[in-house]
Amino acid sequence: MPYFDAASSLPLHPVARQALLASLDEGWADPARLHREGRRARLLLDAAREAAAEAVGCRPDELVFTPSGTRSLHTGIAGALAGRRRAGRALVVSAVEHSAVLHAAEAHEAGGGTVVRVPVDRTGRVDAAAFGAALRESGSPEGGTALACLQSANHEVGTEQPVEEVAGFCAEAGVPLLVDAAQSLAWGPVPGRWSLLAASAHKWGGPGGVGLLAVRKGVRFAPPAPVDERESGRSPGFADLPAIVAAAASLRAVRAEADAEAARLRALVDRVRAEVPALVPDVEVVGDPVRRLPHVVTFSCLYVDGEALLHALDRAGFSVSSGSSCTSSTLIPSHVLRAMGVLSEGNVRVSLPPGTAEADVDAFLAVLPEAVREVRAQLRAPSGAPPAPAAADREAGEAGRAGAADGEDGGPETADPGREAALTVDSRGKRCPIPVIELAKVIDRVPVGGTVLLLADDEAARLDVPAWCEMRGHEYLGAQGHAYRVRRSA
Amino acid sequence: MPYFDAASSLPLHPVARQALLASLDEGWADPARLHREGRRARLLLDAAREAAAEAVGCRPDELVFTPSGTRSLHTGIAGALAGRRRAGRALVVSAVEHSAVLHAAEAHEAGGGTVVRVPVDRTGRVDAAAFGAALRESGSPEGGTALACLQSANHEVGTEQPVEEVAGFCAEAGVPLLVDAAQSLAWGPVPGRWSLLAASAHKWGGPGGVGLLAVRKGVRFAPPAPVDERESGRSPGFADLPAIVAAAASLRAVRAEADAEAARLRALVDRVRAEVPALVPDVEVVGDPVRRLPHVVTFSCLYVDGEALLHALDRAGFSVSSGSSCTSSTLIPSHVLRAMGVLSEGNVRVSLPPGTAEADVDAFLAVLPEAVREVRAQLRAPSGAPPAPAAADREAGEAGRAGAADGEDGGPETADPGREAALTVDSRGKRCPIPVIELAKVIDRVPVGGTVLLLADDEAARLDVPAWCEMRGHEYLGAQGHAYRVRRSA
Repeated sequence: MPYFDAASSLPLHPVARQALLASLDEGWADPARLHREGRRARLLLDAAREAAAEAVGCRPDELVFTPSGTRSLHTGIAGALAGRRRAGRALVVSAVEHSAVLHAAEAHEAGGGTVVRVPVDRTGRVDAAAFGAALRESGSPEGGTALACLQSANHEVGTEQPVEEVAGFCAEAGVPLLVDAAQSLAWGPVPGRWSLLAASAHKWGGPGGVGLLAVRKGVRFAPPAPVDERESGRSPGFADLPAIVAAAASLRAVRAEADAEAARLRALVDRVRAEVPALVPDVEVVGDPVRRLPHVVTFSCLYVDGEALLHALDRAGFSVSSGSSCTSSTLIPSHVLRAMGVLSEGNVRVSLPPGTAEADVDAFLAVLPEAVREVRAQLRAPSGAPPAPAAADREAGEAGRAGAADGEDGGPETADPGREAALTVDSRGKRCPIPVIELAKVIDRVPVGGTVLLLADDEAARLDVPAWCEMRGHEYLGAQGHAYRVRRSA
Repeated sequence: MPYFDAASSLPLHPVARQALLASLDEGWADPARLHREGRRARLLLDAAREAAAEAVGCRPDELVFTPSGTRSLHTGIAGALAGRRRAGRALVVSAVEHSAVLHAAEAHEAGGGTVVRVPVDRTGRVDAAAFGAALRESGSPEGGTALACLQSANHEVGTEQPVEEVAGFCAEAGVPLLVDAAQSLAWGPVPGRWSLLAASAHKWGGPGGVGLLAVRKGVRFAPPAPVDERESGRSPGFADLPAIVAAAASLRAVRAEADAEAARLRALVDRVRAEVPALVPDVEVVGDPVRRLPHVVTFSCLYVDGEALLHALDRAGFSVSSGSSCTSSTLIPSHVLRAMGVLSEGNVRVSLPPGTAEADVDAFLAVLPEAVREVRAQLRAPSGAPPAPAAADREAGEAGRAGAADGEDGGPETADPGREAALTVDSRGKRCPIPVIELAKVIDRVPVGGTVLLLADDEAARLDVPAWCEMRGHEYLGAQGHAYRVRRSA
């Protein structure tokens, strides 16, 4: 049963398992104690720190173990901001960082700091020069930029960020750069003059519950209180030492295989990127096609509920994940897809674990078209063929009144009577992908050049209506509140 | 090789090991994911939560797993204080809480809150009525008491606290009580109407890296930012699920054996308590003799460097811990011993793991006297026999001038010329237990009724000089700064 959610978590690497079992008998004592059990535990901890530091590319005394990548990010960001408080209170991050970074940024804002979110292009990549400009421009009356955060590669779409170039701008500006290396550390060290680095062992086949936080010597750092004497005062509490040993051992092991495995997985992902759009109608493959992680590919399918597709693939034996709003209790699509401005509905992330067989990818490509068809059929969605002449949910006049009552109609278009909506569809109260499906069903009922007004209050519509227009070749005229205007093209 | 530091950390319980191994294959996936690997992980997590909640005595939805007991305390205290901010900003704790509680209290003070530390008696126990009075009196101009913290039993001396009675006072005052149950949870649930509870798996034979935090429904709680969606928003980051499963399974297992094992260990500890003072001269056994943990006994030896004694016992095959200042880089004796006002020098904590054989305790009692003798001999300390007529380090006149230059001499005694020091010993710059050894060496050089002035700047002297006087039957006349005055008795 192929597991294609490696970017979420990996099974324990055989070397991790071996190291874990080997250290259970000696790794339970408190390494801070002076007795022989404590000294043995300390030796294991020191050896694990040396191995991990070598893989990260830092000194052992610059590296601490934390309870997770998330905690590494939380502590790293809070500690660097507090340590640099005199330099300023601005934090510069990319808009597509992991939620742990964005949550830490929100906490900084709640505490009176400022946060600048640098946008990304449609591939999910920040522009290094724009990031550098943000460093310089983010100064507030109280001072300048305290810290910058940039992921090495994006966790949802796999796009690599220009970390080395941004690190150069940071060095010029005298601003420390924290790199979230959670998705890339298995594949190699992070290049460039970064100042702090965070990572998570279960992303490379180590156990859960182990994060890495590196803070270069010379970086001002004041860890958030309360602390204790463990891990240089940067990660309080008694850690799971066998898990730490397993994490360090498996990082070395995956690094030894990384280059060969990356080349192999890259070829498999290239096949998925090329073949999915040919096999499934109305699909958009997202993320940078070249500058990307070797094992991640993400695509979105029109007229598809991501959660339903995930379940269909699960029934067919494939485990994937989805950034569609439909999978989340918040009803808000993935912040990454939003920042990229790409289709969110029917979103699927395929991330291949090391060792994935080509036959498993073949099987996935064989199963995917039927899974998508099945979900679209359940939703009575258009399926590549011209949409059936289904009736709109309401008559134009009725929906028009509803729109007017909301006070959300009008806008720039109203000045031009020729742009008045010929047809209105009220999809309010309906969740993605229904609004886009209803739009697709009625577009052929207006003449070429005519417009449809779609009323939709699902947040995903903000991404998915313009994305649908681009994919289907219609003209997106813009939105006013919950009212979206689309002109039919030929 | 007997390991007698159970209160610090225990080897993995066989059931923990079994549960850990059994869940490695299914416990690696993200329990928040919808695919089959995620669902299996979620089932494991739910089952572990139910088992742990049953042992704690709370509902599963009141219990979250954290990365350590320390993190449980930090989060529990910060979350309860923030949740009750409108009720007040005062925090009431006992003076002998674990350092994780005291560090959290210091962070609260640094943030503008107030902390009341309720003292303990010479056995290390708080007076419940005094704790109740502190709850009512700790109100500040901005409001009342937000939270109270009390350990179920002390980690250094084993004394049980009157948790049930204090919980009653807390309920009367409408103040939530957080119980640090780290040392006692293996032996049984915490009685009384507590509101929050923290514990740590490696204290009962579970793995490191797993803490428990229970927050009763109805307790106002605002976890410190940043958070994520895991563990009810109370413990961010991807956890080590096999370790959590092992923690829950081993808690059930140790509970099944707890009553019988407690009775057995209690008898062994009673022997240690009775026999150590008979076997070793100048020893003080500390902690409540009855209301105590079954497996912990702590004693302090005059004229002994605790770290040296720990190493001597280690060479003899016994692993113990020490709360002496000498073992710590801070040079400050254990805050617990300080709060109790008992001798800190030569402090040894013996904490027996489940299954400790009587023969191991016999062996310890056979080895201890020689180990103490050895350490005392190295320090040329008095050894029960009348002290040798060693020369004082300085003549009285010289040391007297030094004392006067410091401006620290004088005080209440100077009004009575008969109390003028007949002999002055300057032990400044010398670490414990040297000052007390030097005091013991010269006391017989003054006539009965005469006084010795000891100059000592090691913080431990503040505890150890009065403790020495009480143990040797001399009269402690008090201290002024670093000058201690002692009158020789018959």
